[in-house]
Amino acid sequence: MTGGTILTVGAFAMDTIFRLDALPEGPGKVIPLDAVEVAEGMAAAQAASIVRLGGKAALWASTGDDATADRMVAQLTAEGVDMRRIRRVPGARSGFSAIFMDRAGQTMIVPRYDPAITSDPGVDPDLDGVAAVMVDVRWPQAARRALASARGAGLPAILDADLASAETLESLLPLATHVVASESAARLVTGREPAEAVVALAARYRVFAAVTAGAEGCYWVDGTTLRHTPAPRVAAIDTLAAGDVFHAGFALGLVEGWPMDEVLRFASAAAAIKCTRFGGRLGCPSRDEVEGIMRAPS
Amino acid sequence: MTGGTILTVGAFAMDTIFRLDALPEGPGKVIPLDAVEVAEGMAAAQAASIVRLGGKAALWASTGDDATADRMVAQLTAEGVDMRRIRRVPGARSGFSAIFMDRAGQTMIVPRYDPAITSDPGVDPDLDGVAAVMVDVRWPQAARRALASARGAGLPAILDADLASAETLESLLPLATHVVASESAARLVTGREPAEAVVALAARYRVFAAVTAGAEGCYWVDGTTLRHTPAPRVAAIDTLAAGDVFHAGFALGLVEGWPMDEVLRFASAAAAIKCTRFGGRLGCPSRDEVEGIMRAPS
Repeated sequence: MTGGTILTVGAFAMDTIFRLDALPEGPGKVIPLDAVEVAEGMAAAQAASIVRLGGKAALWASTGDDATADRMVAQLTAEGVDMRRIRRVPGARSGFSAIFMDRAGQTMIVPRYDPAITSDPGVDPDLDGVAAVMVDVRWPQAARRALASARGAGLPAILDADLASAETLESLLPLATHVVASESAARLVTGREPAEAVVALAARYRVFAAVTAGAEGCYWVDGTTLRHTPAPRVAAIDTLAAGDVFHAGFALGLVEGWPMDEVLRFASAAAAIKCTRFGGRLGCPSRDEVEGIMRAPS
Repeated sequence: MTGGTILTVGAFAMDTIFRLDALPEGPGKVIPLDAVEVAEGMAAAQAASIVRLGGKAALWASTGDDATADRMVAQLTAEGVDMRRIRRVPGARSGFSAIFMDRAGQTMIVPRYDPAITSDPGVDPDLDGVAAVMVDVRWPQAARRALASARGAGLPAILDADLASAETLESLLPLATHVVASESAARLVTGREPAEAVVALAARYRVFAAVTAGAEGCYWVDGTTLRHTPAPRVAAIDTLAAGDVFHAGFALGLVEGWPMDEVLRFASAAAAIKCTRFGGRLGCPSRDEVEGIMRAPS
């Protein structure tokens, strides 16, 4: 069964990722092992990953009207993401980050965002051809519009509940049909650790809820039953965008109508492979690669 | 007296400079106070600074054939630098760096260079309209050609002797008519501290020699007399490209035929003002600003 287009909504920025033997410990010059410039941010990384995993994706995100935006849009267009909904804010600067990463995937991140980028879009998203909406927490006014519009159209309204202010999270949670939260965001909202937090989220917001806990796998609630899906064991070298690959796999399985257990195993396997590859979202595997690791004996 | 065009030769890369409250001390995220993307590298920063200081400059440097090169060339063209001699290497990537800088100007620098960029240019530089040549140590085969061509044409052949391999420095020093060396490079070549090193350089290579020592000013040899020019005292917040501004002032004064004492006071004052401004070479002052600080009581 194939699904339609997944519209992702939120963060979009240009990252330059420098792979280093070790993070700098003070002033000085360090020659990197490798370096890549990659347009990502959560929603953008999710959209590109959905396409790599065999789905269809469109991005609703906000940029400046600068040359960086041109390169960001060109990169995502080349990945096969539908970029027709991108907003360009006159006079604003597109977001960008420098990321130093060591061999174990530990990072120093310096992100630069122009607040003008995340102003109210003033319109609801175009849902023509869209089968599901997935929003992150970085463009809250667009996220609220997108979740509400999706619910109004009877579509899955997925919230990537990563760490944000409690106010932002609590304004988005009631609008979602599906919540996939990070451990830290779940703790902020519920005051509990992952297994208890996911139960609290599902009950409080009457949604499907999952909480990701990195190498410890993810907890989710099936009806009223707490479930746990382990993460495949891998030697992680770059966890940047691993959460986005997980969310991409989740949304894809959902719109393709798989059993929820399979959706979460697929998302976990995709994220695990990503962790073994340098380059943020560029490390997202193909569907064949994910299915390969799912069939392998653990 | 006005001079002709100064051709600078060597480093050209895109720096992204993030100004931070403090350098990171381990993994994590740091929000910058400010951030700029600026095309610099020694030779490029020198060329742009020469124009800001009221002179004429052309750049001979090597880039990839990527979009970064387009932006780099556009930035320097907008500064008024003659960019007709830029070499683009097919299939190569332009150099770029991420720089984290604290409030005191201390930096963590991660530069990424494609070795293909610094291959032999295969031709000597076009010296049409050129009044002096100034080379750095980052594109040695071009630097050797440029110094030799300048000497052959009876023009000043200035070497910015910054830290490089002893082999590179020793291949360039005999070709120069004027050497302005950093403290560390002078120490590498002579084994001595600045005041003794500058005397050794002047005698060994029979050139005009100066050695810069940051806030301690610069040492130079006038005929056979050791001279010292103090640096104006400033509260430094960004020393990035201060050496390039110094070299720009030096080359400009030289082609305009000023007394050497005035040349070095001008270069020192220009570099001192630059140190008070964030943004690498973007902090280079105008000639009026330099002359203002030179007239001020110290």
